[in-house]
Amino acid sequence: MTAQIIDGKAVAAAVRNDVKEEVTKLRAQGFVPGLATVLVGARPDSVSYVTSKRQACAELGIESYHNELPENISQDELLALINKLSADSKVHGILVQLPLPKHINEELILGAVDINKDVDGFHPINVGKLGMKGREPLFAPCTPAGVIELLDRIGAKISGSRAVVLGRSNIVGLPASLLLLGRDATVTICHSRTKDIAAVCREADIIVAAIGKPKFVTAEMVKPGAYVIDVGVNGIPVLNPDGTPAISEKTGKPKQKLVGDVDFDAVKEVAAAITPVPGGVGPMTIAMLMKNTLRGAKHAFGLL
Amino acid sequence: MTAQIIDGKAVAAAVRNDVKEEVTKLRAQGFVPGLATVLVGARPDSVSYVTSKRQACAELGIESYHNELPENISQDELLALINKLSADSKVHGILVQLPLPKHINEELILGAVDINKDVDGFHPINVGKLGMKGREPLFAPCTPAGVIELLDRIGAKISGSRAVVLGRSNIVGLPASLLLLGRDATVTICHSRTKDIAAVCREADIIVAAIGKPKFVTAEMVKPGAYVIDVGVNGIPVLNPDGTPAISEKTGKPKQKLVGDVDFDAVKEVAAAITPVPGGVGPMTIAMLMKNTLRGAKHAFGLL
Repeated sequence: MTAQIIDGKAVAAAVRNDVKEEVTKLRAQGFVPGLATVLVGARPDSVSYVTSKRQACAELGIESYHNELPENISQDELLALINKLSADSKVHGILVQLPLPKHINEELILGAVDINKDVDGFHPINVGKLGMKGREPLFAPCTPAGVIELLDRIGAKISGSRAVVLGRSNIVGLPASLLLLGRDATVTICHSRTKDIAAVCREADIIVAAIGKPKFVTAEMVKPGAYVIDVGVNGIPVLNPDGTPAISEKTGKPKQKLVGDVDFDAVKEVAAAITPVPGGVGPMTIAMLMKNTLRGAKHAFGLL
Repeated sequence: MTAQIIDGKAVAAAVRNDVKEEVTKLRAQGFVPGLATVLVGARPDSVSYVTSKRQACAELGIESYHNELPENISQDELLALINKLSADSKVHGILVQLPLPKHINEELILGAVDINKDVDGFHPINVGKLGMKGREPLFAPCTPAGVIELLDRIGAKISGSRAVVLGRSNIVGLPASLLLLGRDATVTICHSRTKDIAAVCREADIIVAAIGKPKFVTAEMVKPGAYVIDVGVNGIPVLNPDGTPAISEKTGKPKQKLVGDVDFDAVKEVAAAITPVPGGVGPMTIAMLMKNTLRGAKHAFGLL
């Protein structure tokens, strides 16, 4: 059996379309959702991420308020900006692009974001509420929320399933585990200290791989019929037919390609459904950020 | 093999003794740790818990400031008291005895406790930090912290072990899972929707049972050599030799006895170590509350 290939681009487009429709209605009533983006320094990857997020805002009718700060900005100055944005009624979401420069205390900065504008869902209070019974954070972190959205859209039954999450990062592994738990899965969280991770994975109806190791999850680790969601994004060298690294004619550097944490070609012969890399979870992150920003705006407008 | 019976009373006494020694030293330097207790209404169990906590304070040299409020106190009045205690520099821990009356929003009240005085560790920000990498809450919830303390004192190896937590309550199951994860266990969280919970338990090197079902964990569910920590406290009827319920001569009511979530007599023949009920985890809760109060005081005094 070959697995269903989950088309993250299509699901993300559908989510973005839903957001766009709601934003259009809000704007017709005079409500304008707004996202503040904060970029410190000029890391090429960070610049690229922020640009994509702002483009998404523009497409969906969300105002974006961009704040570009020099690499050497002081912590106090950055904090003052976050406080200003937290108080700004036009702003319904604050996105601080990570990582921040080393001289800035990330915990302090993220902790200063108004929890009602914490569209990344990284504030500890939102993480705590994610796990607690009877508490509901306003925002779930974007990538894990995208994982759940993908599972829902393909009709995966989460309640009562055994879910194994590989990785316990603040950004993916931990919140994905808490979201799955909140949806009544029996969740096992694996990490670098886990013994016989293959045996643990084989018990899973749902595997969420966010461990940052190329092709780590092999076909032997997957129960036939499992759902496999690959959050990994790893660059590996492209090889020539003779096994030597391929060199880009344009840059003169070794060519790279992106692969996930899952051995896609092999696992797709075992799983019921699987996300590709790229084009699986990746596109969901920005889509869920837009959804969170809309949610923040509706909350601010008293429409939630 | 018969399991080591973990003497929670002895461990709790040792923890209390450590706290007492530190408090004595602090007082000699003019620093007086203080715990505010807040009791709303007069539920007999709540009265009894608060009394025990205040007695422990008295024994260890911690000042306790008791606040007894009528059942019908308004939410605003209670909130005002919490705010007052949060601002009071003599108070280093605030204990709001749960449950609160139904007309009061528990989330709102607990959320108002200064996180630097949240000795119960129930504030979502402390729960979030418990799970997050690189974050450290000032306080871990008392009962789960007691579970870890017991495992540590008997020399159980937590890192790399497979831990199964039965139950996902805010007070025990969830924070116990996060603490075990933080100690590098591979953690599985089970609950009422878990399928084949027996098979899941059999994988565990450490079982933490906090599911509220008398004698739920049977010998067949326990891997030989596992550590079994029983957080359950369930009242069951005492039976006469002929199987009829025994009646108390004093009260005329059916006699009850306390049992845990684990079938102690059977499981002790399989496990490496096991906590009894009563006398296992129970005494740890107040001991850890005292430890947390000391910690809050040291933090306030700048001694942490």
